[in-house]
Amino acid sequence: MAYIDLGVDETREPGIRGLLRYRPSTGKPLSDLAEALLRGDSPLTRGEREYIAAYVSALNDCAYCTGSHGAVAAAQGMPSDAPVSDKLRALLAIAAAAASGGHAVTPALIADARATDATDLEIHDTVLLAAAFSMFNRYVDGLGTVAPSNPKTYEMGAARIVAHGYSS
Amino acid sequence: MAYIDLGVDETREPGIRGLLRYRPSTGKPLSDLAEALLRGDSPLTRGEREYIAAYVSALNDCAYCTGSHGAVAAAQGMPSDAPVSDKLRALLAIAAAAASGGHAVTPALIADARATDATDLEIHDTVLLAAAFSMFNRYVDGLGTVAPSNPKTYEMGAARIVAHGYSS
Repeated sequence: MAYIDLGVDETREPGIRGLLRYRPSTGKPLSDLAEALLRGDSPLTRGEREYIAAYVSALNDCAYCTGSHGAVAAAQGMPSDAPVSDKLRALLAIAAAAASGGHAVTPALIADARATDATDLEIHDTVLLAAAFSMFNRYVDGLGTVAPSNPKTYEMGAARIVAHGYSS
Repeated sequence: MAYIDLGVDETREPGIRGLLRYRPSTGKPLSDLAEALLRGDSPLTRGEREYIAAYVSALNDCAYCTGSHGAVAAAQGMPSDAPVSDKLRALLAIAAAAASGGHAVTPALIADARATDATDLEIHDTVLLAAAFSMFNRYVDGLGTVAPSNPKTYEMGAARIVAHGYSS
């Protein structure tokens, strides 16, 4: 159970879902941010972006976000059977650094990504994804929300996200 | 200079400002989030919320965010000449924990805040403020943006924010 009374049945609206409903004035821009970052125009595929989100969430030990974004990544083909590309590997290194702190993203990490042909926009979106999940993870766990243990719950949620997105 | 070409004069649009302009699709929800969190309805005053934002930004060593939100807090009377209240002190302890990681916010910290009459909504807004600035700080420093060293720059920016807000 969350540390505060969210006024929802957390078994039906676990993790961030109860929080978004509890406080609509912040829930709306948070949902819009997720929609733009994970599903809006980007040179990174939706699968790659969800994979970065799940990776950062795992680094932050956020079970709900790792489960939900891992399931959305899988529903969109990530990880694939092919090995991770050099570019995605370099972007994941930037994401891990950004998750640990803004100053940990060094010019050397940026140069490594550029050497794999990563563009400015790909680097931008990777840093903002890592930053945004540093927020979502802290929001979800800092208020003690429920994380379902059944993988089926995340798979059902992923099907809904793939079909309808984060803003609906 | 930022790690990527933002297409702006960073001496005129330092810190997050160039980032918001570079990527309007994410800039809009980020600005709306700042407006709702720092200036929308809340049991915490605007000064208290800016003070929490500046405090978290200082913990994350983000010079631009510390300078800008510290100046907006000061323009709205924080810190005041009066000592920090027990309630705000307890909320700052929650904010510091959330900044270090979601799981660092313990039931004991929540109980300490409740003992000072902090409400669910005050606890919620404190955790989300700390989480959101964990994002903004990483975004600003993870892309290597410019932080002006002249306090006057932040004071002028604060006057604009107090008059017009974050979404304009």
